Amino acid sequence: MYTIDKLYEAVDVRGPVCVGLDTAEAYIPPKERRRWEWDYQAVWAYNQALIDATADVAACFKVQIAYYEAMGLGGLETYAKTLRTIRERGSLVIADIKRGDIADTAAQYAKAHFEGVFEADFVTLSPYMGMDSLDPWLSYTHRTGKGAFVLMRTSNPGMRDFEYQELKGGGRLYDAVGDRLTELAALGKHGYGAFGAVVGCTEREEAAAIREKWETLFFLIPGYGAQGGAAEDAVLLLQNGNGGVVNASRSILKAWTTEAQEAATCSDAAEAARKAVITMRDAIRAAVNTGAFP
Amino acid sequence: MYTIDKLYEAVDVRGPVCVGLDTAEAYIPPKERRRWEWDYQAVWAYNQALIDATADVAACFKVQIAYYEAMGLGGLETYAKTLRTIRERGSLVIADIKRGDIADTAAQYAKAHFEGVFEADFVTLSPYMGMDSLDPWLSYTHRTGKGAFVLMRTSNPGMRDFEYQELKGGGRLYDAVGDRLTELAALGKHGYGAFGAVVGCTEREEAAAIREKWETLFFLIPGYGAQGGAAEDAVLLLQNGNGGVVNASRSILKAWTTEAQEAATCSDAAEAARKAVITMRDAIRAAVNTGAFP
Repeated sequence: MYTIDKLYEAVDVRGPVCVGLDTAEAYIPPKERRRWEWDYQAVWAYNQALIDATADVAACFKVQIAYYEAMGLGGLETYAKTLRTIRERGSLVIADIKRGDIADTAAQYAKAHFEGVFEADFVTLSPYMGMDSLDPWLSYTHRTGKGAFVLMRTSNPGMRDFEYQELKGGGRLYDAVGDRLTELAALGKHGYGAFGAVVGCTEREEAAAIREKWETLFFLIPGYGAQGGAAEDAVLLLQNGNGGVVNASRSILKAWTTEAQEAATCSDAAEAARKAVITMRDAIRAAVNTGAFP
Repeated sequence: MYTIDKLYEAVDVRGPVCVGLDTAEAYIPPKERRRWEWDYQAVWAYNQALIDATADVAACFKVQIAYYEAMGLGGLETYAKTLRTIRERGSLVIADIKRGDIADTAAQYAKAHFEGVFEADFVTLSPYMGMDSLDPWLSYTHRTGKGAFVLMRTSNPGMRDFEYQELKGGGRLYDAVGDRLTELAALGKHGYGAFGAVVGCTEREEAAAIREKWETLFFLIPGYGAQGGAAEDAVLLLQNGNGGVVNASRSILKAWTTEAQEAATCSDAAEAARKAVITMRDAIRAAVNTGAFP
């Protein structure tokens, strides 16, 4: 069984929200931060509270490793514990690592992130170096069902620099990436491949065309909230409310800041995060139901 | 002062070889491996011996983080100690991490790899997501002089998939990347920018044209030896024997396998590595002197 099937089923039951644990120490209520000597201890306590509060209303979690690398070895231990906690609860986790390297090196990365202390269910990958940089990850997919989301058309302004380059043979660079990804097959029982794509919900005009063109690609959708995407944009990248997960990080991690301030506790923050996930889930479901999608 | 100037001066004095510490446990003589309980302990001992043996005949070191991530938290501690040892000796180190992400995340990565326990002198970056993904790194360059090598035209077969895509406006994707990199300026006193490019020495035909087109880009040159590039190919990417460093990893790390086998010690391996670096350096210098370059 491909893990992408489990993700599809999680979206069906719990909705399409992906909780992004890009946990900077600054996102944690000051009162809670002060309880810990080290930043990575505060982040670990905070992550546990947020996972507990949101696991049953979110499709999955995405953990951005950069925030943990920035805290050194203690940060990476918190990263490992966060992944393990999510997986032990029976939830799925995407390691947002955006790796991409020659095959020998990619094999080491695959071992690092699909096995051992940093084991995740999915990873994000960068396609720049070509399809052979994906092969070692694909071997794991065939053996273990694990999957990946490959950068295709991201949500940052800089996407226009290279992803948007028009190709001599037609289409843009991101089209070429999408086309090659569909060739990887490894199709799950719900019609989506184990190798999906990262497609931001920030460009409303192209969303419907992208969804229609690559119907077997499951999308990891960034850009919601802080980066400008709304529920009406995100649903254009879904198919009947599935076929993708919509990530939000800061708007969930910092949901507490709109209600309590200095005095907020971890449990205030966890409750606010849970409400934020439910609000986002219901907004996307409502947009699906009102047929905001084509 | 930009660190790229120090690298230029190191090439002038010690030659253009970059020693790649992509240290897999399997590259270490069996006799030495058996002395340690954990793979990362064996790698740490091996790296120390190789750094000692090659620092005075190499321009710099490149440490591929994937091999260390694959060994978990202990591996990352070895990674940190390896970087620190290289820098404490006064040598320069390139963290081969190929990161690339939205600006907020890139800022975290920059903090992770330009400060703290994983501090390096240079990093490798992926350009796929666009120029805003490089900005946080560039801020460090302006403040601290540190530099980066951005993937442009790599040495793996898969480079043809996307890097080689012909663009509607002319040139290939890698041309567009090279052009944008030259805009970053941050030019050192020897005429090279703090942001250089990764250009493999595996495609002889294009090498001279690439070198001529981007004369202010310092090149990190993979593909020598195991991947097929020879001294005559590598010099085409240099300018009067400078302006680039030529990386070799396996051919140095495993140099001992051609002489001793089962009985080899760390010091045998270090001596063989030193000989391999000198042989490679002298082959490149000879190719420079015989005018194999245009």
